[in-house]
Amino acid sequence: MQHWKARVEISLKPGHVDPEGETTCQSLRDLTYPVKSVAVSKIYTITLEAEAQADAESQIKEICQRLLANPTKDDFTYQVAEAK
Amino acid sequence: MQHWKARVEISLKPGHVDPEGETTCQSLRDLTYPVKSVAVSKIYTITLEAEAQADAESQIKEICQRLLANPTKDDFTYQVAEAK
Repeated sequence: MQHWKARVEISLKPGHVDPEGETTCQSLRDLTYPVKSVAVSKIYTITLEAEAQADAESQIKEICQRLLANPTKDDFTYQVAEAK
Repeated sequence: MQHWKARVEISLKPGHVDPEGETTCQSLRDLTYPVKSVAVSKIYTITLEAEAQADAESQIKEICQRLLANPTKDDFTYQVAEAK
C-alpha cells in the first residue's frame, strides 16, 4: 500500500462573513498597514494509505464532503501527490 | 498606488504538538479512513497597497513577524503577486 500526501484547502464560500479575517484586517489597519482586505482559510495536510492516486483522491474528496467542509458555507480544493 | 495580493501560510514549527490535526486524524480513523497523520495550517489572503512588489513583500514579512506568526511556535511563508 502506497502513502499519499493530500493538501486540502477549506475556504469560505463567497458572500459569507469572515469575522477572523475582518478582525485581522482591522488590527493591521490599527497598526497603520495599508491593508484593504484579509480572508482566512485552513489547510489540512493529510497523509493516507491507498492503492493508487485515483483511490487516494476519491477518499480525500469524501473526507472533505463528510468531515472537513461545511457544505452550507465552505468551498474546498485539494491536491494529492505521492508521499516522499 | 498599486494593489497587491499576498498569500501567507502560518504553520507549526516541527516538533510542536498540533491538537487540532491530531483530533482530526483520530476522527478520520474512527470513520475507518486509512489516515496516517493530519497537520493543520492557516492561510491569510491579504490585499494591500504598495508602490512596488519589493515594498509589498517587506510589509508582509513585517506583518507576519509582528502579528500573524508566533515566533515561539510558528513558521511562515508568503507569496506576493499583483492583484487583478
